[in-house]
Amino acid sequence: MFGMGTSKVIAASLTPLRADLGIDTEFLSQHIGWLLKQGCGQVLLFGTTGEANSFSVDERRAALEGILDAGIDPERLMVGTGCCALPDTVSLTGHALANGVRDVLVLPPFYYKNVSDDGLFVYFDRLLERVGANRMQLFLYHFPQMTGVPFSHSLIERLLAVHGERIVGLKDSSGDWGHMERLVGAFLGFKVFAGTERYLLRMLQAGGAGCISATVNVTVGRAVDIVQRWELEDVSARQDDLSRIRAVLDGFPMIPTLKYLYARRHDRYQWQYMRPPHGPLSEEEAAKLDSQLKSLDFSWPV
Amino acid sequence: MFGMGTSKVIAASLTPLRADLGIDTEFLSQHIGWLLKQGCGQVLLFGTTGEANSFSVDERRAALEGILDAGIDPERLMVGTGCCALPDTVSLTGHALANGVRDVLVLPPFYYKNVSDDGLFVYFDRLLERVGANRMQLFLYHFPQMTGVPFSHSLIERLLAVHGERIVGLKDSSGDWGHMERLVGAFLGFKVFAGTERYLLRMLQAGGAGCISATVNVTVGRAVDIVQRWELEDVSARQDDLSRIRAVLDGFPMIPTLKYLYARRHDRYQWQYMRPPHGPLSEEEAAKLDSQLKSLDFSWPV
Repeated sequence: MFGMGTSKVIAASLTPLRADLGIDTEFLSQHIGWLLKQGCGQVLLFGTTGEANSFSVDERRAALEGILDAGIDPERLMVGTGCCALPDTVSLTGHALANGVRDVLVLPPFYYKNVSDDGLFVYFDRLLERVGANRMQLFLYHFPQMTGVPFSHSLIERLLAVHGERIVGLKDSSGDWGHMERLVGAFLGFKVFAGTERYLLRMLQAGGAGCISATVNVTVGRAVDIVQRWELEDVSARQDDLSRIRAVLDGFPMIPTLKYLYARRHDRYQWQYMRPPHGPLSEEEAAKLDSQLKSLDFSWPV
Repeated sequence: MFGMGTSKVIAASLTPLRADLGIDTEFLSQHIGWLLKQGCGQVLLFGTTGEANSFSVDERRAALEGILDAGIDPERLMVGTGCCALPDTVSLTGHALANGVRDVLVLPPFYYKNVSDDGLFVYFDRLLERVGANRMQLFLYHFPQMTGVPFSHSLIERLLAVHGERIVGLKDSSGDWGHMERLVGAFLGFKVFAGTERYLLRMLQAGGAGCISATVNVTVGRAVDIVQRWELEDVSARQDDLSRIRAVLDGFPMIPTLKYLYARRHDRYQWQYMRPPHGPLSEEEAAKLDSQLKSLDFSWPV
């Protein structure tokens, strides 16, 4: 019951790095373990927030193996596996499934723009043909501001008609509530996650799956709280508090901001390492962020 | 003299595939050889038109080795090596240089949007630190419609101040003549190529480097003709003819269109193979294209 409720909140994990900007697998395992302990039903490894696309295929495979070796349960992971090149997406998806992961989140091929739904259909059709696995659950990763390649309603319908047993849901990072609302309920049993906890309560009320969010790295307690209470009491004030925090964070570059908050919280500079093109907040940005969060009495458990 | 003149026209080569959608290296070598024979000073391997980002790093390395083995002179190549992940870009760039290639064309890391110039500077700074080679010539690949990550004037200035001996030019695929014109002459000795032969004459007249273009795969003869004649006679009518052809081609999806024209020209269906998300033109599109080109008396040498 607890597990079911909280799988509605999935943190898109940050990826801690070493000074040489390689992935610190032990540190990553600890961070994921902490997020799960805070009540996330699952953690997303290698979403946008996890700097997925700044790592090579080999680095991503090695990091997954490392955190599984460290004892993370593969069923508690969702793994981002979508690249521009189909062979890379096949490699990462097949590797995750072979290592006991069931849930994968797949970007469309995102270099080329204005591609046809036919082309995107063929891409996913070939991916599923090549990975072959039956117990997988594939979530489509809809993030038009980053990819420039949206999943249209008719493409989703077509994919589900052929691959509905394996394509089971979508992460909607468009930020557009109208778009999310139209998707929820449009396809029977299709699980729609909001890409921000700003719409967590609305998503739960609309019958959606919950949220998969970057900022849950720092708001996990509040988000889990809403999931546990919303059917029993009025949590709109709690949602408003959470939404105000998210609104502040949305005003700053996401990955540098979250890594800055962790570095400050734990007084551990290592948290500030990130791959270019990302880099630490400027002192001015950090001061502005601190002051805006202070006025909200922002805090999160250690 | 012939070599100098015609290096102003660089075709962004198509990449012929096999039925299994692997790269047909022998076929690719023949195609590049043909483009060089038609008068291109160099050919771009793995630009946008070459479906670069639809291939894995290993596939791209193997294809380059294959065409060099087949006898293509590495000095006649410019190789696209820019990926989202710095280790991939380092791998492809280092590999090209180690194989005798001097000119590389590098996209910015293109998944993340709204990244800072600082972050992009660090990306290129680290790339050059890691590849180490001195005789390389790096061209920046400015294609904001595809990448969402433009090179700002101030970023280019900053890169040239530190790495001006190795960063020597830019391919401007923005389609915006004003942008190209401002870049030409802004930085001493910086070679600016238009991403379309529509601006070939204007670029030559403004003191730019020439063009690196997808459609030169089919307009190579006309483009080379302009380069050879423009200083001796009025070629504006020739440029207008060329621009009209390009304008028609711009109305259709680029890679499918060029592969269709080759398949039709050589009656060789293999030309139609492409990696998803790209796929062949529909019959309606093909008929429309044929009719529009017919009215222009379009033809190109075999």
